Amino acid sequence: MNQAHSGDTVALGLDQVFELSKAVLIAAGLSEAQATPVARVITEGQRDECHSHGLFRLPGCVQTINHPRFNRAAAPVVENTTAAVTKVDAGFGFSLPAFEAALPTFVEKAKSIGVAVLAINHCFHFSALWPEIEMLTAQGLVAIAMTPSHSWVAPAGGTKGALGTNPIAFGWPREGQNPYVFDFATSAIARGDISLHKMAGKPLQPGWAIDADGNPTTDAAAALDGAMLTFGGHKGSALSTMIELLAGPLIADMTSLESMDFDDGVKAAPAHGEILIAFDPKILGGTRDNQASSERLFSAISDQGARLPSLRRYEARARSLAYGVRIPRHLYEQIMSLPRAG
Amino acid sequence: MNQAHSGDTVALGLDQVFELSKAVLIAAGLSEAQATPVARVITEGQRDECHSHGLFRLPGCVQTINHPRFNRAAAPVVENTTAAVTKVDAGFGFSLPAFEAALPTFVEKAKSIGVAVLAINHCFHFSALWPEIEMLTAQGLVAIAMTPSHSWVAPAGGTKGALGTNPIAFGWPREGQNPYVFDFATSAIARGDISLHKMAGKPLQPGWAIDADGNPTTDAAAALDGAMLTFGGHKGSALSTMIELLAGPLIADMTSLESMDFDDGVKAAPAHGEILIAFDPKILGGTRDNQASSERLFSAISDQGARLPSLRRYEARARSLAYGVRIPRHLYEQIMSLPRAG
Repeated sequence: MNQAHSGDTVALGLDQVFELSKAVLIAAGLSEAQATPVARVITEGQRDECHSHGLFRLPGCVQTINHPRFNRAAAPVVENTTAAVTKVDAGFGFSLPAFEAALPTFVEKAKSIGVAVLAINHCFHFSALWPEIEMLTAQGLVAIAMTPSHSWVAPAGGTKGALGTNPIAFGWPREGQNPYVFDFATSAIARGDISLHKMAGKPLQPGWAIDADGNPTTDAAAALDGAMLTFGGHKGSALSTMIELLAGPLIADMTSLESMDFDDGVKAAPAHGEILIAFDPKILGGTRDNQASSERLFSAISDQGARLPSLRRYEARARSLAYGVRIPRHLYEQIMSLPRAG
Repeated sequence: MNQAHSGDTVALGLDQVFELSKAVLIAAGLSEAQATPVARVITEGQRDECHSHGLFRLPGCVQTINHPRFNRAAAPVVENTTAAVTKVDAGFGFSLPAFEAALPTFVEKAKSIGVAVLAINHCFHFSALWPEIEMLTAQGLVAIAMTPSHSWVAPAGGTKGALGTNPIAFGWPREGQNPYVFDFATSAIARGDISLHKMAGKPLQPGWAIDADGNPTTDAAAALDGAMLTFGGHKGSALSTMIELLAGPLIADMTSLESMDFDDGVKAAPAHGEILIAFDPKILGGTRDNQASSERLFSAISDQGARLPSLRRYEARARSLAYGVRIPRHLYEQIMSLPRAG
C-alpha cells in the first residue's frame, strides 16, 4: 500500500484514522463509551494493514449501529460467576466495550488460579480477535479467543450454510519481542475478503465457496449468495463446529444459525457471544523457563524459511507507526461522505 | 472388516482382545496398574475399528516399554495445584494411568468452578484422545485434549519436521445419545496411517508428505524418512504450533522437537505432556437449555448430507459389541508370536 501512487491513495496519520472513525461512530448515534474502543480497533486494524478490519469496516459499523436491535448506549454488566469464570453482558452493544470492562477481573483470575474463562454475551461483533489477544499476552498470559458469526459456511460434505466463519485466535507471550499470535477464520477465507474480491472484481480461488445451488464457484457475488467452505476439509469443518459450540451454546448464546435469524435480513454485523480462555504459564509451568523451549520451536520454524503468523502484521505496524497509513481514495471519499460529529 | 473372508481374518471377542493385550503388556514387564488402562484403550480402539489404535499398536507398546527411559512400574503422582488446575506426573510410564489417577479431581474442579485444566507430565503417549474425551462427556462436561508427538511434521512453507502430528480432540455431551466427538491429527494424516499405507503398499495422497530432501512424495517409506505436512496449509500449521505450545512449554513439558531428542533413536512412542481443558455448561451457560441450540446445529449439518465426526466409530462400536471384532490373520500371528503372561 505504501508504494501506491499518491493520486490513488490518501495519507493519514494514525490519530486521524482514530478521530475520523470516532467522529463517524458518534454521528451514527454511538455513545462515547461504545465508540472509543471501536475506533481504537479500527485504527489498529488499519495500522497493521489488516485492510478488511480497518477503515473499510467503518461503513459496516454504521449499518450495524442502525440495526433495530442494536443498543447504542449499551453499558456492559460484568458478572463475577466463579473463581475461574467471568461473564459480561454486552447488552447488544459492540463486543469491545464489554471485553474491556471485564478484562481486569479476567486477568486477575487467570493469574490467581492458572486458567480463566471470559464469556461475552449479547454483543454485536465485527472486529478481529488479535487486539484482544495482544492485551492478554501483554499481561504475560497465553490466550485463546473464539466467536461464531452468521451461518455463511457449509460443513464438509454439505451444500449450504450451517456454520459461521468462526475465527480462532491464539497468543503466546515472548520475552522482549512481539508475541506469537495467529487469528484466522475457519472458513477458507474471511467473509470480508470475499467482499474485497467482489469490490475488486477478482475471482475467488477454487475450494473457497459454493453457489446457492451448492455447486463450486469462483465468483465472489455468487459465493455471497451461496455459502463459503471451511479450510482444511472435514477437520476444518469439525473445528468450526467446536467453535460454534464453545462460543455459542456452552455460554448460553447464539449459534451462527440463530444469529442469522436474529439479524432478520438487515445484514448487520453478527450478534452472538465470544469465549476467551487465558492461561498463566507461571502457574501451569511452574518455575521452568518455558521461553527457551518455545523459542527453540519458533527458530526451527523460521530457520527453514517458514513464516511465523503475524510477522507481516508487525512489519506493517512498524511502518505505520513511523509513516502513518495510506488508504484508497474511493474508500476515503466513501467515509468522508458519512455524517461526522464535531 | 466383518465382511472379510474368514480365512484372512481372525474373530475375537472384546474380552479376548483385552486379555490378549494385557497378557502381552504384562509379559513385556508392565505393572498391572499400567497394563490395565492401556489394554482397555487398545480394546476400545479395536472395538471402534480405529485400526491404527487397536491391536495394531500392541507391538509398538512393547517397543515403548523396552525404551531405556520408560518406567514399567510408574505410579502417577497427582498435584492439586490450584482450584482450577490439576497436574499429574506420569513418571515416564504411559499417559493413561496418570489420566485416570487425576480424573476425579479434574472433574470435581470443572464442576465446581466451570473450567479446569489437567496437565499430564512426563508420559509416554500412544493412544487416541477420544477415550479420555468420552470419560469427560459422560460426566456432562465439554472437553478438549491436545498433545505434541515427535517432530515428524513440517510447518507450512517449510522443508523438514519441526512440529508433531499434534492431535486435538473435542467432546460435547448430548442428552440420550452418543456425544459429539472429534479427534484428529493436525498432520494431513495420522502417523499410524502412514505406517498402514507402507504395510499395505498403498501410495499416499498428494499433499500429505515430503521426502528427506523436502520434495513432495506419495511414497509412504520416503514420507517416514522425510516429513509429513499439516492439514489445512498455514492455518493447520498455526493450529499445530498452538498445540505444541499449550501441551508443551505451557505445562513445562517437552515439545515434539525435544521429545524426538529424548527418544534418542529408539523410535518408541513419544514422551511428552498432555493438556486437557474441561468446561461445565451448567456453570458457563446457566439455566438456559444448551441442548436445543446444539441439536439444531447438528441437525443442520446432518440434514444436508454432511456427516458428524465419530458416527462411523459409533456404528463400528455397535457392531463390535454385538458380534466381536475381526483382525487380519497376519496381525493376529504377529501378536501371538509375542511373549504373553499367564
